[in-house]
Amino acid sequence: MTLSDYIPVWDKLSPAQQAQLLANTSSRSVKKGTVIHNGSMQCTGLLLVQSGQLRAYILSPEGREITIYRLFERDICLFSASCMMNSIQFEITIEAQKDTQLLVIPAESYGSVMEQSAPLANFTNEIMASRFSEVMWLIEQILWKSFDQRLAEFLLEESAIEGSSTLRLTHEAIGRHMGNPREVVTRMLRYFQSEGLIKLSRGSVELVDLAGLEALRDR
Amino acid sequence: MTLSDYIPVWDKLSPAQQAQLLANTSSRSVKKGTVIHNGSMQCTGLLLVQSGQLRAYILSPEGREITIYRLFERDICLFSASCMMNSIQFEITIEAQKDTQLLVIPAESYGSVMEQSAPLANFTNEIMASRFSEVMWLIEQILWKSFDQRLAEFLLEESAIEGSSTLRLTHEAIGRHMGNPREVVTRMLRYFQSEGLIKLSRGSVELVDLAGLEALRDR
Repeated sequence: MTLSDYIPVWDKLSPAQQAQLLANTSSRSVKKGTVIHNGSMQCTGLLLVQSGQLRAYILSPEGREITIYRLFERDICLFSASCMMNSIQFEITIEAQKDTQLLVIPAESYGSVMEQSAPLANFTNEIMASRFSEVMWLIEQILWKSFDQRLAEFLLEESAIEGSSTLRLTHEAIGRHMGNPREVVTRMLRYFQSEGLIKLSRGSVELVDLAGLEALRDR
Repeated sequence: MTLSDYIPVWDKLSPAQQAQLLANTSSRSVKKGTVIHNGSMQCTGLLLVQSGQLRAYILSPEGREITIYRLFERDICLFSASCMMNSIQFEITIEAQKDTQLLVIPAESYGSVMEQSAPLANFTNEIMASRFSEVMWLIEQILWKSFDQRLAEFLLEESAIEGSSTLRLTHEAIGRHMGNPREVVTRMLRYFQSEGLIKLSRGSVELVDLAGLEALRDR
């Protein structure tokens, strides 16, 4: 995968702008568990995920973590280049969740093209808006708490009832049980899966971390 | 105040772009308590605060509110024009906290100039990044909770000790009492002030909503 696969407005950049980005982009392989960026480090640059998985999290003063978002193949990490924008005033840590292959665009190169190119600036806006949306979703989950706890409880109950850690239930059916729209159920189930609590497959939900689900339920 | 006072890159827009924005901007007066925008309404447009105060909040399914940020004179509200960007997938409500005088730029006008103008797109990026930073700060407060509760407790204790609701204390002194850097204290005090809990003036802190501070302490 090359830059044009990540940047849908690639064709709207001038040849000189394309060349500037290409000339400065490098490849990087990181092992699972590597901290690629943290708030206090220098500006790491934009990270383009070719394979593997990244996790962005914040740290409490006592060292507790919370995952803000995850990045998969084809995703771009913007906040590892936060020095590009004066108004970004928070510190985020980026860690490889799996062995990960990356492209790295230095913040200065990307920033200087973005300054001239309306299409690239608008594309960057869209990336930030999607991360913003993920963070707002997380806030809602944290604040109104009930739904993730209720869902964990429901899954544990069902599992006890069925005497199995694999539940043959559609998202629609769970939604009916819980009085929530299917979309809300699907989104939370995917979040559970990304947290390693469950594993989803067609028409079934496998509980893989019972202790984690119980901790969530009893939080 | 006119558009050029809000948009620092105004001089980098072409005369035609300036004219397009000016021709479509309108004035609006809203009374305290008016809901100017809510997630399910049509795209309200960019709101530029000339005087007064706006509050952006989200609503739980049960109708509980939490303030995400406040906007004062000279601030621009971007998320009331969220239809401009596909990736904005959350719903926010904007309410006038005081009688407020606004300029409104329709989302289509702003969006179409932003599409052509790198300076305007980059400026928009900065606005979004500052709101993002405020939201991240709020998440940290909610998650790690302790500091706002501890500060409320400290202020209430001091007030009981002094037998006065006006404390003659610098932020530095409070920081020393609590073992936190002055900047952290200043930021939280300003947040308390924006929530109407206290009133800050040079070298003193006046507790104006004791019940609110107690509720925060005992949360």
